[in-house]
Amino acid sequence: MEEQQDFVKDITKMSDDFDRWYTDVVRKAELADWSGVRGMMVVRPYGWAMWEAIQRAFDDMIKESGHENWAFPLLIPRELLVKEAEHIEGFGPEVAWVTKAGAAMEELEEPLAVRPTSETIIGHIIRRYIQSHRDLPKLTNQWNSVVRWEMRSRLFLRSREFWWQEGHTFHASAKEAIEEADLILGYYRSVAEDWLAVPVLVGKKSPAETFPGAVHTLTLEGLMRDGLALQMGTSHYFGQNFARAYDISFSNKDNERELCYSTSWGISTRMVGAIVMAHGDDSGLIVPPKVAPVQVVVVPIFRDDASRAKVEAFINQWSPQLKQHGIRFRVDWRDERPGDKYAHWELKGVPLRLNVGARDVDAAQVELVDRLSRERRALLVSGIATALTSELERFQKRLFERAQEYQRANTVELGTLDEVVSHFRSRGGFAWVEWCGDEAEEARLKADSGGVTIRTIDEHAKPSGKCFVCGQPAKYRVALAKAY
Amino acid sequence: MEEQQDFVKDITKMSDDFDRWYTDVVRKAELADWSGVRGMMVVRPYGWAMWEAIQRAFDDMIKESGHENWAFPLLIPRELLVKEAEHIEGFGPEVAWVTKAGAAMEELEEPLAVRPTSETIIGHIIRRYIQSHRDLPKLTNQWNSVVRWEMRSRLFLRSREFWWQEGHTFHASAKEAIEEADLILGYYRSVAEDWLAVPVLVGKKSPAETFPGAVHTLTLEGLMRDGLALQMGTSHYFGQNFARAYDISFSNKDNERELCYSTSWGISTRMVGAIVMAHGDDSGLIVPPKVAPVQVVVVPIFRDDASRAKVEAFINQWSPQLKQHGIRFRVDWRDERPGDKYAHWELKGVPLRLNVGARDVDAAQVELVDRLSRERRALLVSGIATALTSELERFQKRLFERAQEYQRANTVELGTLDEVVSHFRSRGGFAWVEWCGDEAEEARLKADSGGVTIRTIDEHAKPSGKCFVCGQPAKYRVALAKAY
Repeated sequence: MEEQQDFVKDITKMSDDFDRWYTDVVRKAELADWSGVRGMMVVRPYGWAMWEAIQRAFDDMIKESGHENWAFPLLIPRELLVKEAEHIEGFGPEVAWVTKAGAAMEELEEPLAVRPTSETIIGHIIRRYIQSHRDLPKLTNQWNSVVRWEMRSRLFLRSREFWWQEGHTFHASAKEAIEEADLILGYYRSVAEDWLAVPVLVGKKSPAETFPGAVHTLTLEGLMRDGLALQMGTSHYFGQNFARAYDISFSNKDNERELCYSTSWGISTRMVGAIVMAHGDDSGLIVPPKVAPVQVVVVPIFRDDASRAKVEAFINQWSPQLKQHGIRFRVDWRDERPGDKYAHWELKGVPLRLNVGARDVDAAQVELVDRLSRERRALLVSGIATALTSELERFQKRLFERAQEYQRANTVELGTLDEVVSHFRSRGGFAWVEWCGDEAEEARLKADSGGVTIRTIDEHAKPSGKCFVCGQPAKYRVALAKAY
Repeated sequence: MEEQQDFVKDITKMSDDFDRWYTDVVRKAELADWSGVRGMMVVRPYGWAMWEAIQRAFDDMIKESGHENWAFPLLIPRELLVKEAEHIEGFGPEVAWVTKAGAAMEELEEPLAVRPTSETIIGHIIRRYIQSHRDLPKLTNQWNSVVRWEMRSRLFLRSREFWWQEGHTFHASAKEAIEEADLILGYYRSVAEDWLAVPVLVGKKSPAETFPGAVHTLTLEGLMRDGLALQMGTSHYFGQNFARAYDISFSNKDNERELCYSTSWGISTRMVGAIVMAHGDDSGLIVPPKVAPVQVVVVPIFRDDASRAKVEAFINQWSPQLKQHGIRFRVDWRDERPGDKYAHWELKGVPLRLNVGARDVDAAQVELVDRLSRERRALLVSGIATALTSELERFQKRLFERAQEYQRANTVELGTLDEVVSHFRSRGGFAWVEWCGDEAEEARLKADSGGVTIRTIDEHAKPSGKCFVCGQPAKYRVALAKAY
């Protein structure tokens, strides 16, 4: 097993330097790299396949409930972008502008923004298709990439281009639009918990963290292995704000013109970063089976041509069953030593590995090693596909339970700002407190604590105690954390 | 049926004005519209769903043969774009440039091109991942949109943004790369013929129509109902041209550095335009079942609440079977007259319609109408899902045969340039001729005939006659047409 240690040496230890560990894993597990164009990344097939699995899962959910995919333009005229005041204030500083085009690089009459998000152009377009209440709701979605001129960068978490879906919906009543934003938050929670095995806190954002132009923003917050929270998706309710700015109205049942109520919501390739940071360890990635590009890897072990032929024939007997059962597997015939292969697939976080040597052939079995416990045990090849399917299900469940346990162990209840400051001086995780809702206090929290913020408001709680900052009667129960 | 006639009046007749007919159908069947941003379109859900079906089909094909999806950057530094001389000459005039970004719209040090195609950036990135022949082939693909500053525009066929896949592959030998370009051409042919039911001519482009920087370009050419050819996809072999410009090399089996051999290939949302123009008629679209967003529409017919309840209960009895059999169907309960609904779904080209009235309930049957023959016949609901599945297969086949028949009836063999000029004065379609290969003659053909071009070279033919222009011994058998 020396090879494995040699190989793993290439990765910074998580406990030594989490940031370097993260970058090492993302790059060496072949998820993504910087592209050479400043601040922009290239997502490699192993990372992209995880995003495709997330896409498929979420796309199925929204189609089932009547949402439809559209393709809206990449470029947005400046005049459209600036119509909603809060929105342009929020996004203006991050916009990349197309100002020239064509043979002689002629100046355009009006600059075009490369979309940072599409509320404005979609609002402008969708109004044509809405006349009466019978045209509502309009439930649109698009899978695309957006550009935001970020100055800091971190693979998957913050880059000048990222890939996401953006949903934009238009409704005849506030109630319906509010329910829509809730529905989507539920889907996002399912993507995070059921697919990525990452437990999340869900709830409302405080005013300071609400999306520019929104009435309220819903969020899901996962806890990473360095104790920082990661915002994994948001769902916004706009009331009639966007409809007012972009004049999106309908004739209601009383035949009066009324402004639409709208929502928007998005999850992005940031989700792939969450997989890395919520589950990884010193050996690299651990990928949840439901989104794993490779769920099972087979490593053949042989000394010579004869034993290779024997092992190969054996694998060919039962591996077609795996394909029939929809198991994503790969047989690693690369010209490397077994130990190197073990380390390679551990780094890539493949849930299950099957070691297959000549003696296994004689016993009609394989050696099963799982990436979580690393325990080895014999598995008979009779009924192997069914056995692996249930092993993968168990793995998915154990991974989620492990993340839940981590979240539980890193969540506390605190009473005062002093306690908060002191707690986060040495620890990460979530801290629940009660708050009166004063925005100035929110700013003070951030300043005094070196960056702790209100991640989410528990909408179901009824606080009875005192505000952790001012000691006045509290209105909200909120979760605090340092965050990405 | 008066309603139907009223409705159809809204569409220009194909025989009156094909271009207006096309635009009417694309817009009124809700496939796409102009977005309001000049030259850029918005693809609506009914059109996008066809593209998603094409994506799924082609993505499955390329994954099966080891291709992998990546995400490469949207923006390309100018210095990269200009490295390959022919390439920048070809694309330079069509590029949109990002020159400013951030809060103060600061000037960038170097302009960034919004990708018109990604050979340059992919070449620049992929070279890092290629050291030795063991790293080859690299079979990359990306689904994205590109921007080309076109001056003319036509929905789906020519617009400043379109959606496509671009494949880029890198190989250790010329032979392998040439085979790759051929393999993909075969997949494209399958998409066109097996999925879209559009028969195509496949072969090589003449030098004048070869992609900028390519050694050769393969093409597939479909025939539209106005007699014009449509290039439906291309697959390019670059030899070592791009590898030389972007320094993409590997150490070969003799441990010497060698430049890679590369290919690129793409099909786009233009395919949706092909569906419209290859199959449509005066009533609108006819959509091939395999890519139809709605394969079967059910129109309930009732007079009052009692008969509505009866019809609804009946439909609810058997419609779950349709879903179980994977049939994409919709029951049209909108508050419109049946005749209007018939015309609506004919315009949208839904292959099969089921009319269901109270008398049908009593007879345990529905009335089946197909969009091609428009014949009506009774269909028992016992075993309806199986019956409809085979009806859809038959429909797909008949639609392809109809298009083949049209292509056959509009293909001629001609001998001289005079014959070509005279033929295309009054007719469209394909004309086969034999040609010596002189590029000056290719230019003369275009000038003398008012735009007829060489669409493709039949690579398997061995010409024995005379060149249609100069009368010298011919080298190539080529298909001529006017084209989009």
